[in-house]
Amino acid sequence: MDIDQYRAMLDTALEEARTGLAEGGIPIGAALYHADGSVLGSGRNRRVQEGDPSIHGETDAFRKAGRQASYRDTIMVTTLAPCWYCSGLVRQFGIGTVVVGESVNFAGGLDWLREAGVRVIDLADERCIDMMRDWIAANPALWNEDIGEECHPG
Amino acid sequence: MDIDQYRAMLDTALEEARTGLAEGGIPIGAALYHADGSVLGSGRNRRVQEGDPSIHGETDAFRKAGRQASYRDTIMVTTLAPCWYCSGLVRQFGIGTVVVGESVNFAGGLDWLREAGVRVIDLADERCIDMMRDWIAANPALWNEDIGEECHPG
Repeated sequence: MDIDQYRAMLDTALEEARTGLAEGGIPIGAALYHADGSVLGSGRNRRVQEGDPSIHGETDAFRKAGRQASYRDTIMVTTLAPCWYCSGLVRQFGIGTVVVGESVNFAGGLDWLREAGVRVIDLADERCIDMMRDWIAANPALWNEDIGEECHPG
Repeated sequence: MDIDQYRAMLDTALEEARTGLAEGGIPIGAALYHADGSVLGSGRNRRVQEGDPSIHGETDAFRKAGRQASYRDTIMVTTLAPCWYCSGLVRQFGIGTVVVGESVNFAGGLDWLREAGVRVIDLADERCIDMMRDWIAANPALWNEDIGEECHPG
């Protein structure tokens, strides 16, 4: 698997994120791929669309992939570094590789995953970085809600 | 909040687990409570019932509770110690307290949560211990699938 293949997979996640943005949602998308290059499932954050705080991009892609006997040869591709919740998902199910579009706007659990032996590839994709930076700047309260940060306006 | 109140909350989670068992599912239930004693949501593992690997007891209870501005004063009650996925959920959203029915059959991320400052109460409930032990003994393949363990029959 070379970097261009990972970039092509990221395009699937980015398309999901852009769909979420167009829906008025939080623009984070993900896709679960098999190492053979086939997509098992893709999804996006739907906190706003469905009023469901449990649907992050990664958990949605994982759900859409259905029941799998093994995740060792799967690749979770996501536009933004996974939070603890989604990092825990990766670790519990033994997803072998995580590809993130960026970790500038949110670093998540990447170091923890690396320490647990997960292969982590950070594509530092400018499209992802710009999209998330602009969205967070315009929607700080919603962003804080999505990552469980409480705001205390001073 | 005294131990009897936690035990009463566990009854809600145990009822969910028993419903799951009757449905042919994995018998793990959970409930998210507010510290004022009101239940925000309850749920159960529904991997089998819905073919959805993302629905653990804790994530289902979290979903059922809907969007919340803060989780600091909430209590996640679950019949079995939370796996990394569900421990990550607790940590990301700052759920203040976790009450587990048992951690004998599965220890999950309890130590990690304690280190992160989460208050953890283990009720060591015999009903939960017996139910899960018996179920795992009868369903080893399904149990391993639910926690992402690969079986290699020798």
